[in-house]
Amino acid sequence: MNWEYSRRVKYYETDRMGVVHHSNYLRIIEDARMEWLRDNFMSYSELEKMGVIIPTASASGKFISYLRFDDLFKVTIKLVQFKGVKMQFEYDIINSENGQICYKGESSHFFAVDGSYKPYLSFRNKFPELYKKMCSLCKRDSGI
Amino acid sequence: MNWEYSRRVKYYETDRMGVVHHSNYLRIIEDARMEWLRDNFMSYSELEKMGVIIPTASASGKFISYLRFDDLFKVTIKLVQFKGVKMQFEYDIINSENGQICYKGESSHFFAVDGSYKPYLSFRNKFPELYKKMCSLCKRDSGI
Amino acid sequence: MNWEYSRRVKYYETDRMGVVHHSNYLRIIEDARMEWLRDNFMSYSELEKMGVIIPTASASGKFISYLRFDDLFKVTIKLVQFKGVKMQFEYDIINSENGQICYKGESSHFFAVDGSYKPYLSFRNKFPELYKKMCSLCKRDSGI
Amino acid sequence: MNWEYSRRVKYYETDRMGVVHHSNYLRIIEDARMEWLRDNFMSYSELEKMGVIIPTASASGKFISYLRFDDLFKVTIKLVQFKGVKMQFEYDIINSENGQICYKGESSHFFAVDGSYKPYLSFRNKFPELYKKMCSLCKRDSGI
Repeated sequence: MNWEYSRRVKYYETDRMGVVHHSNYLRIIEDARMEWLRDNFMSYSELEKMGVIIPTASASGKFISYLRFDDLFKVTIKLVQFKGVKMQFEYDIINSENGQICYKGESSHFFAVDGSYKPYLSFRNKFPELYKKMCSLCKRDSGI
Repeated sequence: MNWEYSRRVKYYETDRMGVVHHSNYLRIIEDARMEWLRDNFMSYSELEKMGVIIPTASASGKFISYLRFDDLFKVTIKLVQFKGVKMQFEYDIINSENGQICYKGESSHFFAVDGSYKPYLSFRNKFPELYKKMCSLCKRDSGI
Repeated sequence: MNWEYSRRVKYYETDRMGVVHHSNYLRIIEDARMEWLRDNFMSYSELEKMGVIIPTASASGKFISYLRFDDLFKVTIKLVQFKGVKMQFEYDIINSENGQICYKGESSHFFAVDGSYKPYLSFRNKFPELYKKMCSLCKRDSGI
Repeated sequence: MNWEYSRRVKYYETDRMGVVHHSNYLRIIEDARMEWLRDNFMSYSELEKMGVIIPTASASGKFISYLRFDDLFKVTIKLVQFKGVKMQFEYDIINSENGQICYKGESSHFFAVDGSYKPYLSFRNKFPELYKKMCSLCKRDSGI
């Protein structure tokens, strides 16, 4: 797996401790997930145009080391589970300059109908090609 | 005019300079404006239910002094102009502990139809009571 | 346990799904934790003045239901573990209008020396009164 | 002048109106300014290491049109004034897909000593090369 998202820490992402505020890690992994979807699956804005959204069901992570303003970092992301409409991603955020792992986390999401925030039970039938694509991405990433 | 909005600076509103990030002053005056609307006019969420929104057309301000984490501050707000669908507010953000002015700014807004972001030209005819109320608030605040 | 933090959802906390962006739940529980510290222990800004900070080591949560702009919500918080310098909190975010649980989460933190982000190993010896207070809060909240 | 900053709108930069929250325009022009400094002058993190910071003294802008999630935009930036320690920038934020101007704004800043937030009166004497470079950038951008 070589897909990576990379950018620098922005000034407004830091807090008075001088490091990235921990809530911003959820934004950074969202950035990574959005670009992963664009490159591997379909852009999220295109999904929205089809009436599909992907709310976040859960998120957890460990804040292992710190990122400071202007640090270059990369995010690795893996789709480790996809069942029906539910998917789970794993992330590492790594300081590109010293290789240090700053954050290890995961998040789970589901395909939903725009406006309802309920699992899109007929997703597989309505969008068989997207369903197959997601299955194969999961196989590729998780090796299952 | 004694109406004021007051709260403390939140941790995530600070940046690595140790002070409130300047972009957050626009959020703080929005907080103040929303509460001013609730107390003096109508809550913004009720307006939205009527299909009316109030986009921001412009904003400007001077960052005079700094607010740090946990500082108690107050915001004064005045409706200095209301014409048709356009309104202009002026704000002072003041450190409650030492009386220092931290920010002086203004913002202009307009009543719009939800979804269009265009001035709601028939606002006065559709909502005559709201129109009158806004006029009298402007008179009260601006003395005109 | 009746201590609660309560406020309304701010406009800028919502995203284009029309609900609070999930990253903001970490900010909301931080708000609650800061006020809990002030009311039960010592304000975080006073701790900082003593050279002590409390970085976040981990956070996890389930996004069960949605909060929309202007919704009144409350956060319950319990200190469920305190060992040496490490502490763990549990949170529920509840829509005050309908009683619905919107978020269930936990976060772990540690006392650190300002600037080092390492566990403050001599915390108990340097601040015996604070240590005892934290122990008794944990006992009160967790029943252990 | 062809220097431009460009990226897409992030999900968490939108609000429930479905467009970029107006406070985020100040963050976007900060992103652009930081990259402009890196490419034309010196990276802000290097300046910080020399004990120099650049607080924002004022900012104003007009919100002319809207940016939505995933829209590709560009920011043009010009250093229109530099006197002693004070500098002023002008910005246009333009939707790259349709060429529409979304925001026109300006911000003023000053070189300060880290920790003091006061104009760095001896900046010219302490850093003559940086001073000269800034003058020539201003000449290039403003034509004066």
